[in-house]
Amino acid sequence: MDLAAVLNDVATAIEPQRGSGKVADYIPALAEVDPNGFGMSVVTVSGECFAVGQADHPFSLQSVTKVMSLTLALEILGDPFWERSGREPSGDPFNSLVQLEHENGIPRNPLINAGALVSTDVLVSRHGRDGAVEAILKFATELADGEPVRIDSRVAASERETGFRNAALANFIRSFGNLHNPPEDVLHVYFHQCALEMSCKGLSRAMLYLANRGRDPVTGRQVVSERRARRINAIMMTCGHYDASGDFAFHVGLPGKSGVGGGIIAIAPGQLSVAVWAPGLSPQGNSLVGTLALEKFTSLTGLSVF
Amino acid sequence: MDLAAVLNDVATAIEPQRGSGKVADYIPALAEVDPNGFGMSVVTVSGECFAVGQADHPFSLQSVTKVMSLTLALEILGDPFWERSGREPSGDPFNSLVQLEHENGIPRNPLINAGALVSTDVLVSRHGRDGAVEAILKFATELADGEPVRIDSRVAASERETGFRNAALANFIRSFGNLHNPPEDVLHVYFHQCALEMSCKGLSRAMLYLANRGRDPVTGRQVVSERRARRINAIMMTCGHYDASGDFAFHVGLPGKSGVGGGIIAIAPGQLSVAVWAPGLSPQGNSLVGTLALEKFTSLTGLSVF
Amino acid sequence: MDLAAVLNDVATAIEPQRGSGKVADYIPALAEVDPNGFGMSVVTVSGECFAVGQADHPFSLQSVTKVMSLTLALEILGDPFWERSGREPSGDPFNSLVQLEHENGIPRNPLINAGALVSTDVLVSRHGRDGAVEAILKFATELADGEPVRIDSRVAASERETGFRNAALANFIRSFGNLHNPPEDVLHVYFHQCALEMSCKGLSRAMLYLANRGRDPVTGRQVVSERRARRINAIMMTCGHYDASGDFAFHVGLPGKSGVGGGIIAIAPGQLSVAVWAPGLSPQGNSLVGTLALEKFTSLTGLSVF
Amino acid sequence: MDLAAVLNDVATAIEPQRGSGKVADYIPALAEVDPNGFGMSVVTVSGECFAVGQADHPFSLQSVTKVMSLTLALEILGDPFWERSGREPSGDPFNSLVQLEHENGIPRNPLINAGALVSTDVLVSRHGRDGAVEAILKFATELADGEPVRIDSRVAASERETGFRNAALANFIRSFGNLHNPPEDVLHVYFHQCALEMSCKGLSRAMLYLANRGRDPVTGRQVVSERRARRINAIMMTCGHYDASGDFAFHVGLPGKSGVGGGIIAIAPGQLSVAVWAPGLSPQGNSLVGTLALEKFTSLTGLSVF
Repeated sequence: MDLAAVLNDVATAIEPQRGSGKVADYIPALAEVDPNGFGMSVVTVSGECFAVGQADHPFSLQSVTKVMSLTLALEILGDPFWERSGREPSGDPFNSLVQLEHENGIPRNPLINAGALVSTDVLVSRHGRDGAVEAILKFATELADGEPVRIDSRVAASERETGFRNAALANFIRSFGNLHNPPEDVLHVYFHQCALEMSCKGLSRAMLYLANRGRDPVTGRQVVSERRARRINAIMMTCGHYDASGDFAFHVGLPGKSGVGGGIIAIAPGQLSVAVWAPGLSPQGNSLVGTLALEKFTSLTGLSVF
Repeated sequence: MDLAAVLNDVATAIEPQRGSGKVADYIPALAEVDPNGFGMSVVTVSGECFAVGQADHPFSLQSVTKVMSLTLALEILGDPFWERSGREPSGDPFNSLVQLEHENGIPRNPLINAGALVSTDVLVSRHGRDGAVEAILKFATELADGEPVRIDSRVAASERETGFRNAALANFIRSFGNLHNPPEDVLHVYFHQCALEMSCKGLSRAMLYLANRGRDPVTGRQVVSERRARRINAIMMTCGHYDASGDFAFHVGLPGKSGVGGGIIAIAPGQLSVAVWAPGLSPQGNSLVGTLALEKFTSLTGLSVF
Repeated sequence: MDLAAVLNDVATAIEPQRGSGKVADYIPALAEVDPNGFGMSVVTVSGECFAVGQADHPFSLQSVTKVMSLTLALEILGDPFWERSGREPSGDPFNSLVQLEHENGIPRNPLINAGALVSTDVLVSRHGRDGAVEAILKFATELADGEPVRIDSRVAASERETGFRNAALANFIRSFGNLHNPPEDVLHVYFHQCALEMSCKGLSRAMLYLANRGRDPVTGRQVVSERRARRINAIMMTCGHYDASGDFAFHVGLPGKSGVGGGIIAIAPGQLSVAVWAPGLSPQGNSLVGTLALEKFTSLTGLSVF
Repeated sequence: MDLAAVLNDVATAIEPQRGSGKVADYIPALAEVDPNGFGMSVVTVSGECFAVGQADHPFSLQSVTKVMSLTLALEILGDPFWERSGREPSGDPFNSLVQLEHENGIPRNPLINAGALVSTDVLVSRHGRDGAVEAILKFATELADGEPVRIDSRVAASERETGFRNAALANFIRSFGNLHNPPEDVLHVYFHQCALEMSCKGLSRAMLYLANRGRDPVTGRQVVSERRARRINAIMMTCGHYDASGDFAFHVGLPGKSGVGGGIIAIAPGQLSVAVWAPGLSPQGNSLVGTLALEKFTSLTGLSVF
């Protein structure tokens, strides 16, 4: 399979759609992004890299980082983490409070905002407020293996100023006792985590361990156990795209996670990790062109797990 | 009608139930209250006062103050207030976020927490944060006509510390743009307003204008227009007891408003206002013995509006 | 108070709005009704009658009959009826299934469709399917005291054909065990009850007992106890207009019950009953002009209970 | 990989749990089933068969048949089917009406009862009521390739008698216009479809085409296109186990579909199909021991798609 050729075909196929969707505009730093931006990068478990478009362009990872904080929280708490979060698809928008009220402050899964706040709270309990931000940055940096990683503090500050819905979520979960730290501390870490910036190259490189049973095939580091890697993939498959998770499974057929910065990471277990970036979003908040690109990618490669 | 005798009969009738229900214990100041406390006071539109039990004992008004902040907000905004709050019963607990999410941040009515935060926000917009607290205290003090009124700052501080659910509500409403001030400012005022303390005597005296078409019959002050007074009563009838409002109408038959401090104010339009205090609460958060006392009261006097 | 003059003033006041709202069109027999129809009738507890407009024109009572079936069901079961229905406002549209699912098949109140099906089921258990239809017709006929009452079987048949939502409700309640008879039998009775036809004159005459402590002041018949009459009025106040009940209390200030045929009955306790008919409906399914007429009526007479 | 040995190991591993869970008892025919029953069968894409336990014992397929009716409905309607059903996980129990009300009668996905009624309605439109039952039976029989298939008419009749919740669903969907045939006809077919009986051997044989890109590898028949087969697998992954779909993905890692008869079919794409039967159910209505057996199976074989 000539992945370089595949990526070129994907780029050609999505060209007529470039710029489709609505760029997130709730904070200035995201609103300024070029709506026509597009990049895509693949890293295989044998360590080969392929890229097309602006694959070196850094973008705001946003919710893609929920996979990282989940991974860290699981390493800290182990299975008892699941007493504080479900692992079922939510059937609701990413920032819904309804389900929380009906289920006593236990988020439906760790890949919606509510659940990610719980992951973050676990990190704050372990590392303190500032230590938690550092821990996430360090984790991402190590995984990226030399690709640049930074936190855009302007984005973090903007998120804070406009993040009333997330503040509502944090206070609400706290009212059920399912945050152990002050909501403002958890929000501080959460907004910094969301403001993590990487390129498609960096992101696909960093998440490669999920395609290789938990072990980074280049460095040899066992990031998580095989079992945990499979389970994180399972959660990405059923919950990674908010209330469009079923659609992503249907069209793309890979576990993945999207962010409102326009990025998506997807994993072909045993094969490769693939990152795509295109800032225009669908109404559900997932990259429109990014999803099309991944659909084309699995269609050309036959890499759908189904 | 010998109201003194009626009150004695009521006190006798509820005696076997004294101490029933569960005293609010989410903050220490409320948890310390004597569960057997009971007081009741009536003021007629001709200015006569009758009382039984601990009618001079000050208690924390809590949600009873929602009627006061609604009144003040209506005086400031007039009918446009209703673009920011509905006036339908909620069918949900007092602090539910579910309805807000389904209805874009417009609270169902101004006598649940969400709606009261909107009323408070109107006061903050007009008077500033500290000015709003003063405005409420001044309003209550004037209406009480010499009966003692104070804000228990220990209660206000405790509410703040444990008030995550209310912080969630305020941030959530703000996320829809239906608060115009910082959530923390609105919460500051809200918690101080809830910490208002009066006795049954003071409370029944203060709310007398609602029984007399908006005019205080003793001082002659027209507090609100007749039409507004009737409408506030209507809202108390349909929304004054959270998801037990229908039950209160069914059993008592008067417009009224309860608070988790154990107080209830009720209005017999054209006749009298009546305040009762008994700290044990029903599961819905309304004074258990207070409701029984009012049911007995309307049963003996025939004053149900139905 | 010159009620004849008041009714003329009301008719003049609503004239510019005649024909407003949307006539129910889900069945042919209702869709054919003249949208400009308007009638109003008052009967006082001293037996005087006043009318304006088409007060003799028969119309389909529809949900107004829920008060009659509730009354009959309460006479059969007494207070245990309330184990099978709540008495809280629903906060939902008239035919919602959501609340039922959350509350195990116990309807929120007997004046929404779900609760009315429970009332009807009680009648079927007592009288059988055909006997229940007869019992309701007989009850309405006796109360109407000579005014014409009939069941329009064409309407009943049409309701049956299009009544999938009601069939869903009946089957759903049955699935929780809160109907004791086959859903199709309960629906048969329910659709015939809805098809009851009376004029404003007949309706205001029939419901006069609710304005007079349960006793028909003309015939002297004690239809229900004083206490039950008051309680039925309380339920009409908090629940009589679906998710516009709070609004009706706010604007009109009387207990009342509306139907999609465009009729509304309202009660001024101790004074009179008033029926109005105007077929154009609000989005919530209540007579638009009828509600305006009643608002004008209580504004002119000061008869609001608040 | 020695699949015979694997199945023996699985059977040994679940032995201590045999009989766990609660056998469905809402109809007599299901309630009579031996709670200790257990069978499991695997068919590989190369046509090899392996079995353990009561793999020849026929059981009631119940909701497992939703995959069959979905397949047939997709063959009839093609992609326009998705205008009448979503493909997102529901986050609700299998027979919830709440989501339908919020989403105008469009079921969340075709593997919950509401969506399966839509699939069935498509069959009734094409084949008529009795023809639709025959079409499903014929489809299952052909796929089973000689393994016995029958419809237990006693089960179908029992379902009909107690199926008030399904009758509510059908009438509710019809009220939104999303059934095109009379609810009773659709329910007749639905209940007969649910009453389909096969053994583990028959079921794993019949569904083998989903493991082989839509083509039965033994008969060579292309049952559905490769793309459709992948998509049906995707829907099974995200929606196949009601509100425990996320959990099944997490623990088992294969697309699958369960039924209250205690059966589960799961697909390892490109490899094999596996059927398991154990009648005790989890609170969510999925076979408890069957799920454990499949978890052990993927753990031993490494066949999880993740």
